[in-house]
Amino acid sequence: MKAAMWYGRKDVRVIETEEPSPVKGEVKVKVKWCGICGSDLHEFLGGPIFIPVDQPHPLSGEKAPVIMGHEFSGEVVEVGEGVDAFKPGDRVIVEPIRACGKCPACREGKYNICAQLGFHGLCGHGGGFADYTTFPAEFVHKIPDELSYEKAALVEPLAVAVQSLLQGNFQIGMDSLVLGAGPIGLATVASLRAAGARTIFVMQRKSVRQEYARMSGADYVLDPNEVDVVEEIKRLTGGEGVHVSFEATGSEVGLNIAIDALRFSGTAVITSIWEHPVSVDPNKLVFQEKKMVGSLCYRNQFPAAIKMLADGSVKGDEWITRKIHLDNIVEDGFGTLTGPDKKAQVKILVTPESDLL
Amino acid sequence: MKAAMWYGRKDVRVIETEEPSPVKGEVKVKVKWCGICGSDLHEFLGGPIFIPVDQPHPLSGEKAPVIMGHEFSGEVVEVGEGVDAFKPGDRVIVEPIRACGKCPACREGKYNICAQLGFHGLCGHGGGFADYTTFPAEFVHKIPDELSYEKAALVEPLAVAVQSLLQGNFQIGMDSLVLGAGPIGLATVASLRAAGARTIFVMQRKSVRQEYARMSGADYVLDPNEVDVVEEIKRLTGGEGVHVSFEATGSEVGLNIAIDALRFSGTAVITSIWEHPVSVDPNKLVFQEKKMVGSLCYRNQFPAAIKMLADGSVKGDEWITRKIHLDNIVEDGFGTLTGPDKKAQVKILVTPESDLL
Repeated sequence: MKAAMWYGRKDVRVIETEEPSPVKGEVKVKVKWCGICGSDLHEFLGGPIFIPVDQPHPLSGEKAPVIMGHEFSGEVVEVGEGVDAFKPGDRVIVEPIRACGKCPACREGKYNICAQLGFHGLCGHGGGFADYTTFPAEFVHKIPDELSYEKAALVEPLAVAVQSLLQGNFQIGMDSLVLGAGPIGLATVASLRAAGARTIFVMQRKSVRQEYARMSGADYVLDPNEVDVVEEIKRLTGGEGVHVSFEATGSEVGLNIAIDALRFSGTAVITSIWEHPVSVDPNKLVFQEKKMVGSLCYRNQFPAAIKMLADGSVKGDEWITRKIHLDNIVEDGFGTLTGPDKKAQVKILVTPESDLL
Repeated sequence: MKAAMWYGRKDVRVIETEEPSPVKGEVKVKVKWCGICGSDLHEFLGGPIFIPVDQPHPLSGEKAPVIMGHEFSGEVVEVGEGVDAFKPGDRVIVEPIRACGKCPACREGKYNICAQLGFHGLCGHGGGFADYTTFPAEFVHKIPDELSYEKAALVEPLAVAVQSLLQGNFQIGMDSLVLGAGPIGLATVASLRAAGARTIFVMQRKSVRQEYARMSGADYVLDPNEVDVVEEIKRLTGGEGVHVSFEATGSEVGLNIAIDALRFSGTAVITSIWEHPVSVDPNKLVFQEKKMVGSLCYRNQFPAAIKMLADGSVKGDEWITRKIHLDNIVEDGFGTLTGPDKKAQVKILVTPESDLL
């Protein structure tokens, strides 16, 4: 079969490789659509980050080159021994986490922060940028008929957003700020709207992403080059600020605005991944008893995210900005998302099946 | 009467001033003992911080020079119109917060982060470094007979610690780390012990404060000049780290150790006040879903702190390192606490009554 494999920084190749067979407890999936994620870009531009290179990953037993792709939907074509919950023909998505099940975090049910955490599509054992992949059945989720394979590929980033709302203790009626209208930022905006947010502010510099933010549910889109974002939010919230902010830019200025725009006792949730330490004044937290909290991936949020996309409470149409064939993933996928046109893109979906395009 | 007044940085004077009379709703207290607080030292060395200088404080209507002192106990000698809950002879302490009662924080009951927050003994309207002071009755608390006036002056810093445990969602059986064994750090250690902590680690450089930390309830006192504090805590907690840490040093190294020593999902509570921004790597929060939260003063914790000192669940004997007369506060109080012997001191208590010494 064909697969896109990471060999090194800026070295992703579409090659012929062996088609996997499901072992005991596994499901084999024929991939329909797989989104390119920000972490895929990090691995492409600056990796290895999550990809094992020197030592095999303890859970997959594999190291680079590895098949990439973890935001995918597909059809079950075969099941391994002992798998009763799935049969060929089932429409599914995969929650692409590998967790040890034994560390203190796993024992508390927090498999998303497992001490040996790995990702299907990064840590080895296959991935979604391929014709087929196999995965343990307990991390495979059926999707309802009304959810298209295309939109099902959006469940993964949406689940990241849902987890961030939970980490921030977001509740109905609260005011919120999302920093950055990339894929995770937009999924956060849509989740906030679905969760009954009162006002949703988005900070996003001038680009088509401002329009995507409005389509996803933002009430106000603020450009830090045009307005003082904190002042404007205070003005529009009666002097108070927002209850919860979501940092999805990975920049020092973003994090400080995320804190400054909070009302007293507010929470800044960090979903972004950082390249450098940043400067923060802890007095900002002390004098108004504000909080900062990290959020990573998802745990148990796939069923909710599937429902939200299936019933239309999250639409997500505007997030799919381009659809390409697996054969062209290097140039049309990674090339586009790291090139001059990147801000116009949200999610590029990749398929190995020519007749889906 | 006599009072110690702040005139400017390094300019505190003990002078004769007018004895106050209680207006409607106020209680007049004859001061017995008043502790010198870290924030008093900040005002002395680097102020004004909380003291109003150019504009009168909106709640007191006064500006510098102001009477200092906010950690005090005393005896009621007179009550103003409409005060039924107190009578002359009552033994009391004062919760020294001035809050507006009208801002969003006050309306949610969070009077400790009132938008106009002021402190008796800093914002005007009197203070505890005086023979007498007056204060609104709703912030005056009776103390039981078994609680001495001396120990009652420790209620205020203990209440700061209790609030910090609540902000960190500290629960029985958790492991904890306190950074810095000054007055607030020691009160935090004692609160953790009273709250059923499993293991209490303290980070404190070599000084008599290490001994105070053990007396207050620490299981391990770690000197960062002698051991890698994070490694040592991980080793002693089976590789995990602590559930909650309490930053009471106000230093960048302290804050980073507070975060690094946490287990997954752990919370770093910041009670210290900061002179500069600090450098922090947000990935530390993201990858293990850790939290940082600020804690300021106290709200509704005085009754609990009174009980803890009265019933002996917090002893606090080792916190009173010196007792001096109000006449000598500048040299023996501020001088000692900012001089070469300062690390040997925890709390210096000041009295205006010669026969108490």
